[in-house]
Amino acid sequence: MTQIINDQWRLRARPVGLVKESDFELVQEPLPATGDGQVLVRNHYLAFEPAMRGWLNDVKSYIPPVGLGEVMRASAVGEVVESRHPDYSAGQMVSGMLGWQKYALTEGMPGPMGGLTRVPEGVEPQLMLSALGGTGLTAYFGMIGIGEVREGDTVLVTGAAGATGSVAAQIARLKGAAKVVGIAGGPEKCQWLLEKAGLDAAIDYKSEKVSARLREEFPKGISLFYDNVGGEILDQALLEMAQFGRVVLCGGISSYNEEELPPGPANYMQIVIRRLTVRGFILIDHFAQAGEAIGALSGWIQEGKLIHAEDIQEGFENAPKTFLRLFQGQNLGKQLLKITDS
Amino acid sequence: MTQIINDQWRLRARPVGLVKESDFELVQEPLPATGDGQVLVRNHYLAFEPAMRGWLNDVKSYIPPVGLGEVMRASAVGEVVESRHPDYSAGQMVSGMLGWQKYALTEGMPGPMGGLTRVPEGVEPQLMLSALGGTGLTAYFGMIGIGEVREGDTVLVTGAAGATGSVAAQIARLKGAAKVVGIAGGPEKCQWLLEKAGLDAAIDYKSEKVSARLREEFPKGISLFYDNVGGEILDQALLEMAQFGRVVLCGGISSYNEEELPPGPANYMQIVIRRLTVRGFILIDHFAQAGEAIGALSGWIQEGKLIHAEDIQEGFENAPKTFLRLFQGQNLGKQLLKITDS
Repeated sequence: MTQIINDQWRLRARPVGLVKESDFELVQEPLPATGDGQVLVRNHYLAFEPAMRGWLNDVKSYIPPVGLGEVMRASAVGEVVESRHPDYSAGQMVSGMLGWQKYALTEGMPGPMGGLTRVPEGVEPQLMLSALGGTGLTAYFGMIGIGEVREGDTVLVTGAAGATGSVAAQIARLKGAAKVVGIAGGPEKCQWLLEKAGLDAAIDYKSEKVSARLREEFPKGISLFYDNVGGEILDQALLEMAQFGRVVLCGGISSYNEEELPPGPANYMQIVIRRLTVRGFILIDHFAQAGEAIGALSGWIQEGKLIHAEDIQEGFENAPKTFLRLFQGQNLGKQLLKITDS
Repeated sequence: MTQIINDQWRLRARPVGLVKESDFELVQEPLPATGDGQVLVRNHYLAFEPAMRGWLNDVKSYIPPVGLGEVMRASAVGEVVESRHPDYSAGQMVSGMLGWQKYALTEGMPGPMGGLTRVPEGVEPQLMLSALGGTGLTAYFGMIGIGEVREGDTVLVTGAAGATGSVAAQIARLKGAAKVVGIAGGPEKCQWLLEKAGLDAAIDYKSEKVSARLREEFPKGISLFYDNVGGEILDQALLEMAQFGRVVLCGGISSYNEEELPPGPANYMQIVIRRLTVRGFILIDHFAQAGEAIGALSGWIQEGKLIHAEDIQEGFENAPKTFLRLFQGQNLGKQLLKITDS
């Protein structure tokens, strides 16, 4: 095999506040030879999620931060171009935590972030990054395992037009929730939630008064709140929770780029007054049940019961810019970047 | 029966900020005759708890606020002086939500706050207001039912020298926690926690750096945090939680007298990162299991395994002043007011 030059986006500086393009550096480097047990993957699509912002801070968390000078960590889907591992062969499509790079050389073994997964026959590869990927699985485990969604629930989902929120909201509907309301930014997203995702109501936080709309939509309170956003909307929603309600804390994108930690929800004593249960979770703890989740999600997709949306940008050089789209609220559905021409 | 003049403390004004004596009014009024089905009780001890501050605000909560001009709601223990109800007879000691008044005329029937309970034979009456009363039961249900304390837990309790905290901390020890640490204000309380209540460590928030001490006492993190205080200490403790830890939110005395709701815990995203479960609860939901709890608590007391402390002030005229002691952190154990001479 001839020497391949690999393009990589590496972390140059730890972002302060909103992440910027200059925090990353585009480098080119010859690929080493594929070692014994390794798999060489040519990435086709890179995936972007808000949690990646947290991986850039030098703080103790559920996984170590991305090191300075390291390839930016991200999930991706690509084609095996060379395999020296018995479980993989050239031509197969695989997904994994393959990073912001054109080629990824892996051990081909399950790692802390889930290893390399073969894309099943008949499945669109980019689906492995969206509805069947980390964000779809997060929605599944968060709504079913942590939130224990059940028939009759009155459900609120924030970031509802995002990759996780859109799946979480639809799962609530599929599991028999009496009402599912999504909060999103802008008329296009809200229209999509109503007309495509089949939600009962959508609240545009950019143009509507969220607390008044919540009271209107939930006269008897929110029994299950799936939050991706945090901040002020979380605070307002706490005042509209039903007694014995459940809050699933999935993320808090509103604060990920703040230089100083903003204040927490002033209304948190509602957790006592309304006897709420608030639970946080991280996808990596649920990988053992990934097969079950992928089975359920792909079943719903095939039956046309679960729709998925991808926002696909193009060009490897646009990786940092594409990442920024998340924090500017530009993506409808899963933010992806196509980095191959074919 | 000759006409009895009853002394009552009534709510005169809704407190703004820290509650003050002039928010209440001492009135004297002739007692009406005991009606059919009613019981007349002469109160001996009044009980005080931080949650009573919340009952003074005109906001929707788990029970209606005390109305302006109404007798201040409070639990008390006293002697039946006249009964026109078949379940009670003169001379019996009873406890219930009898209010800041010398005499209480009740229906003798279970109400939303628990009705009238006979003090069992051989039980000190004031114990029905402390370890066997609302605060003791709150500790029991919070630590066992909500916190699910188990062997090996590393437990932190705030307000640990208070009526609820002191019982909660000891229950954790009795249930096999590996370590129980209490936070309290001042050397006297901390000494009591170590020498009397048998805790493994005590942190004096008035003179020690709480976050550093928490890191020192919990090198592997707090697995169960029972919080009565809220505010800054809650915020700091969130940073010291173990993965998959549980937080029982029992109360937040640090903010009860604030005119404006202070900011919530800035570190609340630790709930996600550390996969925490945070649960709030209110005693009134657990009254059906009160018998079981009183049985367990009184058993431990009789065996000398659970100690209880009461801070007993005297004189009916001192009711508002005694209430204030809670917010000044003056009480060690249950705050009571003895209002009879005998």
